[in-house]
Amino acid sequence: MTTPASAMPARDLSGMRGGMWAVTPVGAALAQTARALADDLARVAVDPDHERSFPQQRWAKLRRSGLLGATVPGEFGGPGCQSVHDLCVVVSTVAGADPSTALGLSMHLAVMWSLTAGSGLALRDQLFSDPAGRVLLRGAARGRMVACLAISELGRPLAEPRTTAIESGGRMRVTGTKSFCTNSPAADLFVVLTRISGLHGTDDVGIALVPRGTPGVQVVDDWRGLGMAASGSGTVRFADCDLERRLVVPLGTWGETPAHVGSLSATGTVVAAAVFLGIAERAQQLAIEHARRRASSAVELLGRNEVDLFLMRSAIAQATGLVDTGPTTGRWSSDDLQAALCSASLGVRQLAVGVVDRALTCVGGAGYVADHPLATLYRDVRAGGMLRPYSFLDGPRLLGTWRLGLSDEQDAP
Amino acid sequence: MTTPASAMPARDLSGMRGGMWAVTPVGAALAQTARALADDLARVAVDPDHERSFPQQRWAKLRRSGLLGATVPGEFGGPGCQSVHDLCVVVSTVAGADPSTALGLSMHLAVMWSLTAGSGLALRDQLFSDPAGRVLLRGAARGRMVACLAISELGRPLAEPRTTAIESGGRMRVTGTKSFCTNSPAADLFVVLTRISGLHGTDDVGIALVPRGTPGVQVVDDWRGLGMAASGSGTVRFADCDLERRLVVPLGTWGETPAHVGSLSATGTVVAAAVFLGIAERAQQLAIEHARRRASSAVELLGRNEVDLFLMRSAIAQATGLVDTGPTTGRWSSDDLQAALCSASLGVRQLAVGVVDRALTCVGGAGYVADHPLATLYRDVRAGGMLRPYSFLDGPRLLGTWRLGLSDEQDAP
Amino acid sequence: MTTPASAMPARDLSGMRGGMWAVTPVGAALAQTARALADDLARVAVDPDHERSFPQQRWAKLRRSGLLGATVPGEFGGPGCQSVHDLCVVVSTVAGADPSTALGLSMHLAVMWSLTAGSGLALRDQLFSDPAGRVLLRGAARGRMVACLAISELGRPLAEPRTTAIESGGRMRVTGTKSFCTNSPAADLFVVLTRISGLHGTDDVGIALVPRGTPGVQVVDDWRGLGMAASGSGTVRFADCDLERRLVVPLGTWGETPAHVGSLSATGTVVAAAVFLGIAERAQQLAIEHARRRASSAVELLGRNEVDLFLMRSAIAQATGLVDTGPTTGRWSSDDLQAALCSASLGVRQLAVGVVDRALTCVGGAGYVADHPLATLYRDVRAGGMLRPYSFLDGPRLLGTWRLGLSDEQDAP
Amino acid sequence: MTTPASAMPARDLSGMRGGMWAVTPVGAALAQTARALADDLARVAVDPDHERSFPQQRWAKLRRSGLLGATVPGEFGGPGCQSVHDLCVVVSTVAGADPSTALGLSMHLAVMWSLTAGSGLALRDQLFSDPAGRVLLRGAARGRMVACLAISELGRPLAEPRTTAIESGGRMRVTGTKSFCTNSPAADLFVVLTRISGLHGTDDVGIALVPRGTPGVQVVDDWRGLGMAASGSGTVRFADCDLERRLVVPLGTWGETPAHVGSLSATGTVVAAAVFLGIAERAQQLAIEHARRRASSAVELLGRNEVDLFLMRSAIAQATGLVDTGPTTGRWSSDDLQAALCSASLGVRQLAVGVVDRALTCVGGAGYVADHPLATLYRDVRAGGMLRPYSFLDGPRLLGTWRLGLSDEQDAP
Repeated sequence: MTTPASAMPARDLSGMRGGMWAVTPVGAALAQTARALADDLARVAVDPDHERSFPQQRWAKLRRSGLLGATVPGEFGGPGCQSVHDLCVVVSTVAGADPSTALGLSMHLAVMWSLTAGSGLALRDQLFSDPAGRVLLRGAARGRMVACLAISELGRPLAEPRTTAIESGGRMRVTGTKSFCTNSPAADLFVVLTRISGLHGTDDVGIALVPRGTPGVQVVDDWRGLGMAASGSGTVRFADCDLERRLVVPLGTWGETPAHVGSLSATGTVVAAAVFLGIAERAQQLAIEHARRRASSAVELLGRNEVDLFLMRSAIAQATGLVDTGPTTGRWSSDDLQAALCSASLGVRQLAVGVVDRALTCVGGAGYVADHPLATLYRDVRAGGMLRPYSFLDGPRLLGTWRLGLSDEQDAP
Repeated sequence: MTTPASAMPARDLSGMRGGMWAVTPVGAALAQTARALADDLARVAVDPDHERSFPQQRWAKLRRSGLLGATVPGEFGGPGCQSVHDLCVVVSTVAGADPSTALGLSMHLAVMWSLTAGSGLALRDQLFSDPAGRVLLRGAARGRMVACLAISELGRPLAEPRTTAIESGGRMRVTGTKSFCTNSPAADLFVVLTRISGLHGTDDVGIALVPRGTPGVQVVDDWRGLGMAASGSGTVRFADCDLERRLVVPLGTWGETPAHVGSLSATGTVVAAAVFLGIAERAQQLAIEHARRRASSAVELLGRNEVDLFLMRSAIAQATGLVDTGPTTGRWSSDDLQAALCSASLGVRQLAVGVVDRALTCVGGAGYVADHPLATLYRDVRAGGMLRPYSFLDGPRLLGTWRLGLSDEQDAP
Repeated sequence: MTTPASAMPARDLSGMRGGMWAVTPVGAALAQTARALADDLARVAVDPDHERSFPQQRWAKLRRSGLLGATVPGEFGGPGCQSVHDLCVVVSTVAGADPSTALGLSMHLAVMWSLTAGSGLALRDQLFSDPAGRVLLRGAARGRMVACLAISELGRPLAEPRTTAIESGGRMRVTGTKSFCTNSPAADLFVVLTRISGLHGTDDVGIALVPRGTPGVQVVDDWRGLGMAASGSGTVRFADCDLERRLVVPLGTWGETPAHVGSLSATGTVVAAAVFLGIAERAQQLAIEHARRRASSAVELLGRNEVDLFLMRSAIAQATGLVDTGPTTGRWSSDDLQAALCSASLGVRQLAVGVVDRALTCVGGAGYVADHPLATLYRDVRAGGMLRPYSFLDGPRLLGTWRLGLSDEQDAP
Repeated sequence: MTTPASAMPARDLSGMRGGMWAVTPVGAALAQTARALADDLARVAVDPDHERSFPQQRWAKLRRSGLLGATVPGEFGGPGCQSVHDLCVVVSTVAGADPSTALGLSMHLAVMWSLTAGSGLALRDQLFSDPAGRVLLRGAARGRMVACLAISELGRPLAEPRTTAIESGGRMRVTGTKSFCTNSPAADLFVVLTRISGLHGTDDVGIALVPRGTPGVQVVDDWRGLGMAASGSGTVRFADCDLERRLVVPLGTWGETPAHVGSLSATGTVVAAAVFLGIAERAQQLAIEHARRRASSAVELLGRNEVDLFLMRSAIAQATGLVDTGPTTGRWSSDDLQAALCSASLGVRQLAVGVVDRALTCVGGAGYVADHPLATLYRDVRAGGMLRPYSFLDGPRLLGTWRLGLSDEQDAP
């Protein structure tokens, strides 16, 4: 069921004083595209309860928009946006109209940024020089390549996936079942966290890049979430999927929780957090519109939200600045950078929950009706607590452990 | 869609150490009935998204259970439970299995208590002596009379309803539209907040008792909420409904916000709060079951929930004790009592939101799936913020105003 | 430096609508005494910064008041108050005027209650029958016996005290240093947590009752706290103190954290929590007086405080009711009772911090001046977080562990 | 009383991973100076309770350090730091060792920045061209000019000062009493908020610049605060102080609360907030040192502090960036800028209170002793709630009003 446009107030960015704006020219153009897409998506709102099937038509719009190829360099036909800051602007803009689609977009862009703008993985040079890689990038530039993170397994720690990639005759065979695979129904390439056996004595944990067409891939499309209804975050099964060996990349030892999530993942977690900034900005806008229409004792709550929104935008701007331009001053180790990125992500996602809750309090009973946009945002925003590894449950403990570890190092003579 | 029993863990009260128990023998019997009903309801869980129609089969069970007639005196065939405390035990027990049905039950019981056990309204004596009233009570004892509060009008202050009751030829005619009429699809009698004209010079605000069969009553059954999906809290329209004059009872002057909500309403707000205690207890239980099955860093969150649950149970016990046995000591004005009742209700509903949120944090991604009971509780519990007049938005301000008003009185010479 | 009475608004209990009142006749008389003492103490306010020496003159008043002997049975000349509820009323009343003295009083009363009204320790019967014990009780009834808890050692877990009681020739010798010994400068009897050696093979942890006059006892009187300035919570040293063997009582194995704090301690923790209720009530009263004198946007904060004060009073009433009259219904194990008591204590102490903070926000800059009573309360109230074992740091984790442990037991066949 | 250096752990910035660093070369030099000063000040810690007299020796160090002249342009002998960001780095660095002195420094620097780097006041050009002004600036460069904000009057709204500046024979006469005049015992120039009469028909509110030597100026030096003991925030009286007319500058109409605090004040409020960042960083450092020395269940609290510290630093960096370099993108009105600055200031001050509280929880009883640095920080940090106009009481409401006002403007055709 779709709500007619008139029932769904368009996201009016003119009321978004103090929001975030792109800092690079190419980012500004992408932000304008994101704005237009958001206006378009706002007209065809997803019903969070009824529309169980993945909204392929929305992803068709997204593919056509060019946003999916944002990071692809010019030589492959993309705009070559290297600014994580501007990717966050794009993501938060789309999230104001459609959090589920923005969540999928953020996952895809985080992967694409790590493959193209980031220089951490050997995979990148390989990708740029390999003919197949170049085809993939050209496709990505035209919205024909959507990446999907197939990381989670229900009840398993991240460092101990049950999914296996086993060496066999110079090739690898991947088998396992993944949950919470956001945008899997639209995906063309799965980034699968896997145990890797047979490469050397001990087992590794790493990622396998599995194209959708690979025999054995089954996208179940079974997502029904508390929120993020249209995000297609369902199950994907991999049954004996045969891959070239170079598509499986070890990252560390299986079962050992790494001290850090890695700077690529840490960057991705900030891009994902931008979704929740967009949700919170939209909620505040709805609360303000409500307050304008009737007498309100909600002024103080709206003011508290302004403070939190400023903190959220600042944290994203600072964290992405560390990645985009590097720390301009001071001493930053790689661990410091990762901790900063994860702090930003966790802080933004936590504050977003409070902003939406206060907005709902301001609007009152009218916001408790399922058709009201705030009722959907209330459900969507809580997804931010589940993002791993810096979930609401584990995030503070991980950061505390990191901070104490720093101190331990300092004790060493 | 109904979830099979096996997927829905039964509410295991043996794990509810430190919970609430009935304090009267008749209450204890009712609590046992509530427990059995809860077990029964837990087996036929409502799908919060799909089951749009009101669950009449659940209300059939409720009618058969005898709980609806809990307050009806023995002379009319009921058990005559006068203890608000024990009504709260009944309500919270049912809420652990089915918050929506418990919310409707709490509204009904609050009305019935005020008509039978409470002595505030002249209506009560009238009800007991009037032949029609006696028929109604006998019906209520057998579950054939469900009361529905038709109070709210979207965007209107409680003290200024647009609904009118107009005197005409010795009778009254009621016209208006009400929102958030919990359990209206099951209701036999509507308690309608209305403007009353024609009785004397100025207009009053008061209640009209409108039997369902009255020509002009239309139950729209259009409820779709963020939560409390099966509560049937939809629209009811009254078009020129013709009533005997004695069924319309003035309470005060139209447009004047009363200093207090009245002790009957204040008592009702505590019974409604018991729903949210039941929700929070169930959420904690689910989090504990989860924690037992796997390694958990959630211990501290569970401990914080224990503290809050103790505060919630204590507040309900103290507040209902003030009603049931009167303050054993000290000086309590009627206003003090009402403020105590409303403080208890507001405090319980606010703490419940935090308990469910921490439980969801403990369970993590598994709880964010729509099928998981916590996902439903997360939506249901937030309804507590909307209950008027002590909503999360208005409640603290009303209590603060009361407290300062007390002080003002004291200044008077 | 003492503040003149005029600068220190007297604690006006008439504004304490909805407060706690005694539930027994003897408690009511004690509460009246406490009220008079509070009025008296309010006139000679302690300067939290300058008056470093322990306020012996305040303790002289306390000794004369009769409150110190509250629990002593009639046969020994006391009023025989057995109600923990009413002891909490006494303590919170005194705390409204003088938190430091009330904290010492609460510690003393907790000890005295466990020696007289509680029936847990064999010590009690011994005390009642022993001639020396009877002298002690008669002295206590006349305010000549102040007990002091000498429990804490800086940086040591409670279960592993370094203080030792060593058997030697049929007697015991106690040696060690204790911190945070509230009211030690006034104390006549020290209740010392100690390691006990020589009684049998393994070492125990237990308590030694050390009279002040015992050679080797040194009360250092060195307390300077963030708050509770006049509580005399300083160091006490025990050097080879020679005791009769029966004055040393084993409680468990040294180094083993007991599953529970014991019901006597758990009861004591609620009596101590009543101090923080008194502080919070006084802070709210000051904020209200301030709000009455000038235009205020503080109404909502005052209302939130009312809710929290109701929760605090309810928790104390419920928890003490469990001790005084037993659970009227339901299944309560000893562990359940202790968990309930500790939940109440922790909840009350945590909420008190928030109430005082909101009161300070309401009053603004005027409250940030050291002379203002709120400035002192702000410092005093934070002592509640340090009470062991249910400190703000450890309390939630201990309760969570208890709750999960319960579940484990249930799993056992 | 001074604590010997050994008892006061020096502020070890090497443990301040992820802190703030200067962004301009001149700022970096000043930051190094601030660091050295902080090390020096940490050795002569102020006793918050005993040292009632203003620490002139600390201000002598500050005068010699050159930090007081940070903003003075090179032509007058100063380093000409124009970066508000770097002023915040200086202030937060000093605050880590001595919050009281840093608070005074922040007030002084905010005034000096508005007189030198800011271009908002006509006063600046006048100051630069006037011989007396040039003398003042040369003195400031050498630490001979300390400015003091004499703004507050107890119980009066900021827009309605009782202090008057009355025109008389071409000169102005200033009379009134001001409270909370931070660093007044060290001040050479008072910036006095005053009602201005006689300049034209209606009365204005504005500022008078009153040199300390002016007859009629009385610095009472009576500060005794809950915290910030050494900040000298006492009373200053002005009795018929005779001033040249040009030293009195109207800002608006008396009694009209301006829509905004003005960009100069808004900038100053961020510089003041940097004090509370420094406090929070120091508290976290103390908690971490404590946690390293013993087993700790405090890891999660430390992690939550890391998140909040990142949010605080980001907010200051973003807000000062808006002033220093202007918004790089987007549409920012003057009002938007002010709201952003005030949001940053309020958010930082609020989060700081939580960080210090968690640090105190981590350290436990040892931190509740008055000698412990955390006990002082706990008192100091709460001063942040009192800074006007964006106090904890008024700030959220003011921001909410601003936000709704924006919306109203947008409604205009």
